[in-house]
Amino acid sequence: MLVVMKPAASAKDQSAVVARITAAGCEVNITEHEGRTLIGVVGEEVPPDAEQVSVMDGVEQVMSVSVPYSRASRDYHPDDTVIPLNGSSIGGNKILVIAGPCSVESRDQIVETAIAVKEAGASALRGGAFKPRTSPYSFQGHGRQGLEWMAEAREITGLPIVTEVMDVGLIEMVAEYADVLQIGARNMQNFALLHAAGESQHPILLKRGMSSTIEELLMAAEYVLSHGNTRVMLCERGIRTFETFTRNTFDANAIPVLKALTHLPVVADPSHAVGKWEYVTAIARSAVAAGADGLIVEVHPRPAEALSDGRQSLTPQHFVDMMEQVRRIAAAVDRTA
Amino acid sequence: MLVVMKPAASAKDQSAVVARITAAGCEVNITEHEGRTLIGVVGEEVPPDAEQVSVMDGVEQVMSVSVPYSRASRDYHPDDTVIPLNGSSIGGNKILVIAGPCSVESRDQIVETAIAVKEAGASALRGGAFKPRTSPYSFQGHGRQGLEWMAEAREITGLPIVTEVMDVGLIEMVAEYADVLQIGARNMQNFALLHAAGESQHPILLKRGMSSTIEELLMAAEYVLSHGNTRVMLCERGIRTFETFTRNTFDANAIPVLKALTHLPVVADPSHAVGKWEYVTAIARSAVAAGADGLIVEVHPRPAEALSDGRQSLTPQHFVDMMEQVRRIAAAVDRTA
Amino acid sequence: MLVVMKPAASAKDQSAVVARITAAGCEVNITEHEGRTLIGVVGEEVPPDAEQVSVMDGVEQVMSVSVPYSRASRDYHPDDTVIPLNGSSIGGNKILVIAGPCSVESRDQIVETAIAVKEAGASALRGGAFKPRTSPYSFQGHGRQGLEWMAEAREITGLPIVTEVMDVGLIEMVAEYADVLQIGARNMQNFALLHAAGESQHPILLKRGMSSTIEELLMAAEYVLSHGNTRVMLCERGIRTFETFTRNTFDANAIPVLKALTHLPVVADPSHAVGKWEYVTAIARSAVAAGADGLIVEVHPRPAEALSDGRQSLTPQHFVDMMEQVRRIAAAVDRTA
Amino acid sequence: MLVVMKPAASAKDQSAVVARITAAGCEVNITEHEGRTLIGVVGEEVPPDAEQVSVMDGVEQVMSVSVPYSRASRDYHPDDTVIPLNGSSIGGNKILVIAGPCSVESRDQIVETAIAVKEAGASALRGGAFKPRTSPYSFQGHGRQGLEWMAEAREITGLPIVTEVMDVGLIEMVAEYADVLQIGARNMQNFALLHAAGESQHPILLKRGMSSTIEELLMAAEYVLSHGNTRVMLCERGIRTFETFTRNTFDANAIPVLKALTHLPVVADPSHAVGKWEYVTAIARSAVAAGADGLIVEVHPRPAEALSDGRQSLTPQHFVDMMEQVRRIAAAVDRTA
Repeated sequence: MLVVMKPAASAKDQSAVVARITAAGCEVNITEHEGRTLIGVVGEEVPPDAEQVSVMDGVEQVMSVSVPYSRASRDYHPDDTVIPLNGSSIGGNKILVIAGPCSVESRDQIVETAIAVKEAGASALRGGAFKPRTSPYSFQGHGRQGLEWMAEAREITGLPIVTEVMDVGLIEMVAEYADVLQIGARNMQNFALLHAAGESQHPILLKRGMSSTIEELLMAAEYVLSHGNTRVMLCERGIRTFETFTRNTFDANAIPVLKALTHLPVVADPSHAVGKWEYVTAIARSAVAAGADGLIVEVHPRPAEALSDGRQSLTPQHFVDMMEQVRRIAAAVDRTA
Repeated sequence: MLVVMKPAASAKDQSAVVARITAAGCEVNITEHEGRTLIGVVGEEVPPDAEQVSVMDGVEQVMSVSVPYSRASRDYHPDDTVIPLNGSSIGGNKILVIAGPCSVESRDQIVETAIAVKEAGASALRGGAFKPRTSPYSFQGHGRQGLEWMAEAREITGLPIVTEVMDVGLIEMVAEYADVLQIGARNMQNFALLHAAGESQHPILLKRGMSSTIEELLMAAEYVLSHGNTRVMLCERGIRTFETFTRNTFDANAIPVLKALTHLPVVADPSHAVGKWEYVTAIARSAVAAGADGLIVEVHPRPAEALSDGRQSLTPQHFVDMMEQVRRIAAAVDRTA
Repeated sequence: MLVVMKPAASAKDQSAVVARITAAGCEVNITEHEGRTLIGVVGEEVPPDAEQVSVMDGVEQVMSVSVPYSRASRDYHPDDTVIPLNGSSIGGNKILVIAGPCSVESRDQIVETAIAVKEAGASALRGGAFKPRTSPYSFQGHGRQGLEWMAEAREITGLPIVTEVMDVGLIEMVAEYADVLQIGARNMQNFALLHAAGESQHPILLKRGMSSTIEELLMAAEYVLSHGNTRVMLCERGIRTFETFTRNTFDANAIPVLKALTHLPVVADPSHAVGKWEYVTAIARSAVAAGADGLIVEVHPRPAEALSDGRQSLTPQHFVDMMEQVRRIAAAVDRTA
Repeated sequence: MLVVMKPAASAKDQSAVVARITAAGCEVNITEHEGRTLIGVVGEEVPPDAEQVSVMDGVEQVMSVSVPYSRASRDYHPDDTVIPLNGSSIGGNKILVIAGPCSVESRDQIVETAIAVKEAGASALRGGAFKPRTSPYSFQGHGRQGLEWMAEAREITGLPIVTEVMDVGLIEMVAEYADVLQIGARNMQNFALLHAAGESQHPILLKRGMSSTIEELLMAAEYVLSHGNTRVMLCERGIRTFETFTRNTFDANAIPVLKALTHLPVVADPSHAVGKWEYVTAIARSAVAAGADGLIVEVHPRPAEALSDGRQSLTPQHFVDMMEQVRRIAAAVDRTA
């Protein structure tokens, strides 16, 4: 921590800052530069809270030299975390492809889709039983019934299930059926949910909030990790910007940056990232080329009848094409898909 | 709803769209313009889902002519909603000022602050017992103990209590103590929480998500209203933009826009909106001048010791000054504060 | 400047950084904290370029402790700069109101508007003769003819003229007619134009770029100031965000922040900031309450016939109302308008 | 064009709108839906200005059904535009790689870099002689001298030159040396410059503004195209968002979207898009996988001595690695590099 004093700070201001730091058991190192006094915090003790110091008289700013997450960082765990998943895994050489409809709409719809995506090469099945919808008047999902239909699809295809949990009170029920609990973008900073997800010890797919920074995503993961649940995969699903032609802006930068900062596997969601099915395959290729460990893609047998996200859903035939293209890109970065 | 067909759409594409619309009981009105066929949806029946139609072959775009919220709109309820609150109220001529610390830190801290803000003219007390924090290692609030201290402060000062509820499972406990349940920016699209807040029939202070549009804020309010709970106040607390000098960007536009679109009272939070105490008073003035019905402001007896948000907290003396300035602005728009 | 070394940096890496700093004539101060070596740069010499040091082996980050602008800062010039303008002035107690049409469309239109806004209390006339338009097929302005019509309006009303200059090659011609040269948002980082505007020694109205930070706006002003032209007024005109209901997002925070960081006068443009005429008066009030020294407002005798920006133009009657409301707010902050 | 009337619009309001439309030679088609009157504009005549109609009494909104650019669109020119460039070309199967330093710093630096990037497989040389810099106190480029050094590097290596022109007054001089005139992000809406670039008939590399939409980029291209200069390549170089870890956010979506909307070649600039050299190769791979026709990459022999952009510059050895990886991705999408 480095405290930068204002040019006009008094000796008394400076003494108060020094006293605050030494009271915390740290030592100070005082220098002058560019007309300002800089008070460096030295030693191994935990320094005082940066925000508190920042409001002391005469303080211009407080700079922090360390990252705020620890368990999520590569410094803490240099090797890639690999998460096993019903015979498949994520974080290793093979790219995990999770595919399925936005919403589970019927027993037949989810089973039909599961069979199709399995055949095309997907390794896991997505589908929502509890749906976060902007409008209270939109379809909200089939709830437990939807989970049961997904379980049936798993029994038939062997594909592990990825599904969203929106509330602490539902974790137990959803965990009974799901192989991976998805925490959606709108809940990335629902700290009660993150806490409970950590305690569940279930694999977690944590989506980046639509206006969350990379650091905030890692801090959200830290909530889960701090409960000893290390099976967390992060998901870049597009962020909100001024661009309106696409649903979100796919932040391709986030993929190599996350791979450098953290040991956790990184998944990309090209469907939400671009929001129009005709561009999904290009973004899937782009994500794998950037270094993603997995993809989560919306597929629906009949997008024009989908109860949600039809605009961004691939048909099974489009998905077959996507898989072929993704496999070629994977090979070009020495991986498989 | 207006369906714009691509210039290259076939007669078959067009027939399929028409069939879809008439199957929903609506009628169509077909015209040609600028090289495109436009299919207008006519009649009083609910048209087919716009997103589904948008993926049909030959469709270029689907335009919607109506707003997606109803109970929140001025069309539905032309008069201002006034919410009574322990002798005070919000939504009428007098501007409701809610003040207090970010976190309830101790019995003495909250009582001392409550007495000070009451004296300066605040009409309600804010304070967090359950705190959403970016880091799992930061102070998370005193929980029920904090609520009890707030209740004691209310008993002493008469100020009604505004406090955040972060999870469905805590609504019952928080509602036992609080006069107003605050739903924080990070939970604006926690639909399970909105649903439960609606069912609680408690007054709700709903903060705008940091990257939520005005329309999404109104849709979140619609979740609460759709359960018959009409006591909802909306809060503009700054949005996330590229600007880094301030914590958020105060969207002053949102205030007159919300006042035009909805009958619900509109509160501004200058503390979070700008994030540095020295600018809070200017933003409070700005908000009232723009038409806000209320302010929610962070006040702490000793900001340099605050466990959270010290950087943006006014001291009681600063708050006295703020109230004086706000009262003058209020008078200039024919209101009181 | 403070150089933070990576935990894994070698002694050789550290020596190279130290050598680079001492080669520039500065001294270093080395301390250890939180597992990292910190190299503080000490002394009065100009330190080496921060970006260059940031790519040296073993360097994690380089922190800067000083602001990059100097002539624009309050430290450099503590008192408010007041710019005289044909009998009026900006930067003093009285709020300067600049009003007029987006485009000068005809001799009669500009004269009629000038008379109307003068009568309502405006102190300067705006109007565009050279128009930046998103489409090459839109009306681009009447050029020199428009300037002549503005000059005629000035002769009749006495109002000084504010008009945009879009290109270095036009500065001479525009400066022949205009009292204030406006540099538009799209040209805020047209450095050739800023350079020439500095050399012109003409008063400058510098609009903030639609995605420029406050610091970048001050750096743009620094370009003009560095040529000895100190008559620069800054203009907050709304920034681009994800919100689509309004044309831009009025960054009210920028007003008190600019007033604290710089001595230059600050103008607000409520017309562009919100983009719909029905909200312009509320934003004008908000800007003055936040501390703006001036307003620039679009007024057109018949907005439904305006060749540009009709959607955000006040009629003369609306402008009369706005002035009355603005005067009341101005009085509430001990100013006049 | 479709005019949506407010529910409260009067018959008189409606008549006025109809009169305005018919006065323009268009016909109207009036229907009722969801409580609103919709006035469709029919026929082949140019409809009245949408913004003007939007301010007429009783009008809620005006929807447009056509895109505002024409020459830039695929509808206008369905085949890919291929631009020849000194024996190379862009827009065909082979990906054009443009490489070189941010600034031309000396004769030796540009020649050394040109030889190195040529050897590694680059097909064009970039380098700035006139530099847009945020600070007036930063290095501004060597001007004509820099252009001469670039010409010498071209003579030695045969690589065509891409260099920025920042002002209308410099086009003639820069065009004397350059094979491609680059228009920088900060000048994307410098309409005087776009106009002159169109008239120059020189190949243009048009960078997307840091907060410009895809549509605005196409409208800027339209300025150039409208002068008959069809040799325009578009460049995605990252947009400004709330994320601060990276310099910009690479909008990977823009690449397939632009390829669908326009026939013009699309270049990606991974250096500016991510801003830190260690991630540039991943973003280059990502861009090619998404469908980019070209790359423009910053390479400097000694980034720690670069006068600008050292933080994001590859060394020649890094560039060799990048080219190898890009070639593999190119092959995976059936292209070469």
